Amino acid sequence: MNDIGVGLIGTGFMGKAHALAYRTVRAVMGDVPGVRLEVLADTPAEKAAEMGAQFGFARATADWRDLVADPRVQVVSITTPNGMHSEMALAALAAGKHVWCEKPMALSLEGARAMEAAARASGLKTQLGYNYTANPAFAHACRLVADGAIGRVVHVRGWVDEDYQADPALPWTWRARLKDAGLGALGDIGCHLISLLTGLAGPIDSVLGEIDTIHKTRPLSDGSGAAPVENEDAASALLTFVSGVKGIFTASRSAWGRKSRLGFEVHGTEGMVIFDQERMNELQLFRNRGDKATQGFTTILTAPEHPPYGAFCPAPGHQLGFNDLKVIELAGFLRAIRDNTRPALDFTAGLEIEKAIHAIALSAREGRRVRLAEM
Amino acid sequence: MNDIGVGLIGTGFMGKAHALAYRTVRAVMGDVPGVRLEVLADTPAEKAAEMGAQFGFARATADWRDLVADPRVQVVSITTPNGMHSEMALAALAAGKHVWCEKPMALSLEGARAMEAAARASGLKTQLGYNYTANPAFAHACRLVADGAIGRVVHVRGWVDEDYQADPALPWTWRARLKDAGLGALGDIGCHLISLLTGLAGPIDSVLGEIDTIHKTRPLSDGSGAAPVENEDAASALLTFVSGVKGIFTASRSAWGRKSRLGFEVHGTEGMVIFDQERMNELQLFRNRGDKATQGFTTILTAPEHPPYGAFCPAPGHQLGFNDLKVIELAGFLRAIRDNTRPALDFTAGLEIEKAIHAIALSAREGRRVRLAEM
Amino acid sequence: MNDIGVGLIGTGFMGKAHALAYRTVRAVMGDVPGVRLEVLADTPAEKAAEMGAQFGFARATADWRDLVADPRVQVVSITTPNGMHSEMALAALAAGKHVWCEKPMALSLEGARAMEAAARASGLKTQLGYNYTANPAFAHACRLVADGAIGRVVHVRGWVDEDYQADPALPWTWRARLKDAGLGALGDIGCHLISLLTGLAGPIDSVLGEIDTIHKTRPLSDGSGAAPVENEDAASALLTFVSGVKGIFTASRSAWGRKSRLGFEVHGTEGMVIFDQERMNELQLFRNRGDKATQGFTTILTAPEHPPYGAFCPAPGHQLGFNDLKVIELAGFLRAIRDNTRPALDFTAGLEIEKAIHAIALSAREGRRVRLAEM
Amino acid sequence: MNDIGVGLIGTGFMGKAHALAYRTVRAVMGDVPGVRLEVLADTPAEKAAEMGAQFGFARATADWRDLVADPRVQVVSITTPNGMHSEMALAALAAGKHVWCEKPMALSLEGARAMEAAARASGLKTQLGYNYTANPAFAHACRLVADGAIGRVVHVRGWVDEDYQADPALPWTWRARLKDAGLGALGDIGCHLISLLTGLAGPIDSVLGEIDTIHKTRPLSDGSGAAPVENEDAASALLTFVSGVKGIFTASRSAWGRKSRLGFEVHGTEGMVIFDQERMNELQLFRNRGDKATQGFTTILTAPEHPPYGAFCPAPGHQLGFNDLKVIELAGFLRAIRDNTRPALDFTAGLEIEKAIHAIALSAREGRRVRLAEM
Repeated sequence: MNDIGVGLIGTGFMGKAHALAYRTVRAVMGDVPGVRLEVLADTPAEKAAEMGAQFGFARATADWRDLVADPRVQVVSITTPNGMHSEMALAALAAGKHVWCEKPMALSLEGARAMEAAARASGLKTQLGYNYTANPAFAHACRLVADGAIGRVVHVRGWVDEDYQADPALPWTWRARLKDAGLGALGDIGCHLISLLTGLAGPIDSVLGEIDTIHKTRPLSDGSGAAPVENEDAASALLTFVSGVKGIFTASRSAWGRKSRLGFEVHGTEGMVIFDQERMNELQLFRNRGDKATQGFTTILTAPEHPPYGAFCPAPGHQLGFNDLKVIELAGFLRAIRDNTRPALDFTAGLEIEKAIHAIALSAREGRRVRLAEM
Repeated sequence: MNDIGVGLIGTGFMGKAHALAYRTVRAVMGDVPGVRLEVLADTPAEKAAEMGAQFGFARATADWRDLVADPRVQVVSITTPNGMHSEMALAALAAGKHVWCEKPMALSLEGARAMEAAARASGLKTQLGYNYTANPAFAHACRLVADGAIGRVVHVRGWVDEDYQADPALPWTWRARLKDAGLGALGDIGCHLISLLTGLAGPIDSVLGEIDTIHKTRPLSDGSGAAPVENEDAASALLTFVSGVKGIFTASRSAWGRKSRLGFEVHGTEGMVIFDQERMNELQLFRNRGDKATQGFTTILTAPEHPPYGAFCPAPGHQLGFNDLKVIELAGFLRAIRDNTRPALDFTAGLEIEKAIHAIALSAREGRRVRLAEM
Repeated sequence: MNDIGVGLIGTGFMGKAHALAYRTVRAVMGDVPGVRLEVLADTPAEKAAEMGAQFGFARATADWRDLVADPRVQVVSITTPNGMHSEMALAALAAGKHVWCEKPMALSLEGARAMEAAARASGLKTQLGYNYTANPAFAHACRLVADGAIGRVVHVRGWVDEDYQADPALPWTWRARLKDAGLGALGDIGCHLISLLTGLAGPIDSVLGEIDTIHKTRPLSDGSGAAPVENEDAASALLTFVSGVKGIFTASRSAWGRKSRLGFEVHGTEGMVIFDQERMNELQLFRNRGDKATQGFTTILTAPEHPPYGAFCPAPGHQLGFNDLKVIELAGFLRAIRDNTRPALDFTAGLEIEKAIHAIALSAREGRRVRLAEM
Repeated sequence: MNDIGVGLIGTGFMGKAHALAYRTVRAVMGDVPGVRLEVLADTPAEKAAEMGAQFGFARATADWRDLVADPRVQVVSITTPNGMHSEMALAALAAGKHVWCEKPMALSLEGARAMEAAARASGLKTQLGYNYTANPAFAHACRLVADGAIGRVVHVRGWVDEDYQADPALPWTWRARLKDAGLGALGDIGCHLISLLTGLAGPIDSVLGEIDTIHKTRPLSDGSGAAPVENEDAASALLTFVSGVKGIFTASRSAWGRKSRLGFEVHGTEGMVIFDQERMNELQLFRNRGDKATQGFTTILTAPEHPPYGAFCPAPGHQLGFNDLKVIELAGFLRAIRDNTRPALDFTAGLEIEKAIHAIALSAREGRRVRLAEM
């Protein structure tokens, strides 16, 4: 049997997304290895059993170490809270499993570094959950940039805003504590933005960052008062890419009305390309071509001309969804395993993203420009 | 075993969409019966085998009658070209199978009528592929209308435009022949629009229609000349609903730039609600409430507040896709089978949609208002 | 002195718009005759005096017949309620004055016919207030259509919606009485839409119309009950142009949330062009050209490439406003007077627009297709 | 005679805008002093004469000092290239004239400081051309913020992008030389953005800036090679307001496709407000109120509820244009002169804006945070 055995740890937002991707990736793509849904791990055991049945896994366990040790498992998906990624990934790699791990890698840069070293040493394949880079619209934007459709890149802007921490009345949770959650908006969503910007404009050389905790305290849920929020609600930075191009980065988890506002503008010497995830099937393109009287931004609807859209739907403009991005991400990972090639965003690539967000935080704390080479 | 055995006929656009829905519906929803992918039918046999493997079916066949006869199959999905729906659906019903059939029902109203009669007589469950009614945004629009958020409905507009027949250079195919394809834009996409408008404003009483064949002939692919296009590229109608409300309907398969432009405006005495499938995760709502200085159309991004969005994703605004609509559609059908209730858009409901599109064509041919009661 | 003496009747919405246009047209355009603001007429006399001073007129009067008779006046602007246009225009023409008259021409088609006959017999210049045709974006749309940028026109859609009569609680006024107001939405705003559609697609051959009075009665302002609304709140029609092209027309004065929603789609064999007045500085253009992967609707911002935008502002995308349209309209009229050429929308052209809206009303009343040749 | 005598220096983009504003301000507003168009100055004399006639000035001159000295002139409008503002403004103030001067004030901060000191000492009224603050939509945004509609302000973003220097093939001009043009994008358009951001969020405390010259050289128009561009094409900054709120500033004159992209997001604890000048009649407002299922950004179309929109047009959503902003700006200035009150953006307020843009440039040059108090 050539199918790949899968173990999935976690059944929340991302756990379900991984499960759905495993269930459909071969049916969608055709050209990827098949997968067997072997083990689902969650706690307590009842939840693992229930969700294992719902997702179609052969077995369920409350002990993720059982899953990692299971010889029928070749790939381990890690979708647990951020603080657990590192230990799980190291264990899975040690057990000889390929790892598909959600972002960010770890609470600290040291944790991420250890994961990267282990992955590199193992020869196994790793993939981080930077799903937005899997969007055919993003791939098309990268291709347009690479092909010179907008000339030479001269400026890049990126933003990522959500409002899940906008309400001052939300109670304090462990997410507000540095030692449990690590970074705030930078770790939750800022890293996604870095994955897009570096995909478009190459590696970052240095950052000049600023962070802000908008709600300094949050009420304790037992009504006994309030506790401090230790990590950032918002972060902004001036970026300098290795290419010399300058850019802007901004992230907020307290941006009322924004639900999945993750986007960019790439300014070039001959045009501009714009994207925003809240309209994830659209790309805006301006090119300084032809009659000035008919120039303007063109709204490109994702279509079979933007692979692998056509694997989902042969009709243009019919819309992919968020979960489809996970399918594309997984397909790339499965092909890398099969072909023994490097996955798009493995732990080594991911470490560079972690460096960028930690550099922004460091720059903000120390009030100075920080080069990624220092990190 | 309580799982439901599935047979799928067809592996094209809709065949794949059905397959993906079957593969994920239980993982997404949790509360629906499980399904077993028993048989896939397509021709030739090699294709059936290949796609059966890709989609994960247990068996494949080149003879759909085998599939229909298979005792392990309880539900038959029909996703073949329109002209084959009727025969297959009748056979499946005769064999005691529930039927999930793509729209339109048949080439002629008579064919649809026969299907409806057979379904009603059988006591089996049927579901037509009106996937756009499964959109949580549409469900929310219906709820807003029903709850009086925009007051009493006073006017309805709907449009459905694509450009798959916009290019005059596209070669002639059987789709242009009345006896093979039946209606043109009305059957392909107009029926979808009727499904939305009647969902919002109730049944239609009469229509005043007009049809147009924009490209009168198309080149034969062998270069030997051109052949006539016998069905309509575009259709428009003035609608009167049973409620007395008036509306407008317009459909085109030759609307350059439109890829999946299916939408509506519902005008009420206290507000308006607007939708367009090309931005399927958005709803526009105006209400005459509060300070005039802050009134305007509000763009509502689909979110867990709009069930069953949350079954796909707990985070708001993260976007559903086209294939997700099929999952919701299927979930409703499986629940109806399990609970022995009436599915949302069964053959009986579908027959009313067929009457509407055939009434528009009849009105156009005879130059007179046509009441649906005549049909 | 070669300046043209101006008399303005009315100081409301359109009266002010005419006054502002007269005050700036030469400063904007340079190449048009100068104007002298001679007489302003309104009632009562105090209002005429006050507004005359505000607008900068040399004299004011409460008797519009004095204005018409004034030998220092060569052009008469008529901006009074619709029921007064006809008498004033006939008097002005009889007095040898050129006439700039707001739309619609008259309450009845007969009234419009009389105005047209008088204008034709007089040899004087007339201009109707179809200001939306003066928009550089509209001119550009017409040019694109004429130049074949979207191929052959195959379908046209137009809409015009406002919400000034959407609120059921608004009191009954004379505007609801047929003999005082004539048509409802068709006369107020539907005629504007006809001016755009015929500008784009040529004259209309026949219509199949429907009208609707959404609020059947309105409360009397003295609290003594309610009175009937005798004219239409909404109207829709299927149009056939002389060219054979088919189209749709829809108009509502009870469309909540719409403030100046006047727009169109022109479908062609090679593209589409779209406009909406609520974003009056934008045009959407799709052309089936070049790489499919970068096709889409282009948003063209009005700019100096779209004359006479540059006369207002040399910088692109800086936005014209509603009152600027009146300046362009007036400039055309003044040039026609100076050059003894035919103005863009004189009473003869305007009569065709009146025929169209009355044909829609007649078609709706009689339930049959009405040809404009009958009118 | 109580009318105010006007002298206008310059007849370009802004010269015409001032002329049009003078011609219409009283007709639009009613409640402002009348103006007499006394003298127009430009070179050569023929141009002054021609444009004087077109704009309706009583006299024309090639020597702006004559204009300044003219006793019939009480207000001097300065619309010449930036390098001339300072000398003209000082001369006009010395001659006892009120001054309406285009932005930026001067090439250097010292120049601006001298203008401010002279204005303060004179007791005369001054107004800078920050027309975008005159937009009723902006005034409404400020009111919403001030009234707490979005709660406490927690983050501010602003951008201003145009593409007038995007094309690398554009020839070198004096605008690229520091001593002739002073700042680049910061002076041309960045100052406009500062005027909006400080209007919304109060004074700026410090900046961390970065500038970039995208096109390092430009071709000499005589074909003899290329010359260096000495000032910035783009600038970005992290802002800290005196209130402690943080923000982002970004400006580019080389942003292809952007024509007048000047806008902001104000993030609050209970909502967000967004504006962009390319759709200058729209404001986006999100408030965390009411049913989550109907929350979203509301697009508010400017209307009579947003004064002084109604002075231009009594019908909502009918659109103001760029030149209308100058009318509102002028009306405020004339009222300040009449009432002896402080104009909205006089030289003292303007100096703070100049400090901000020069602080960004200084911060970029020195690679350190710069406090405005240093400037």
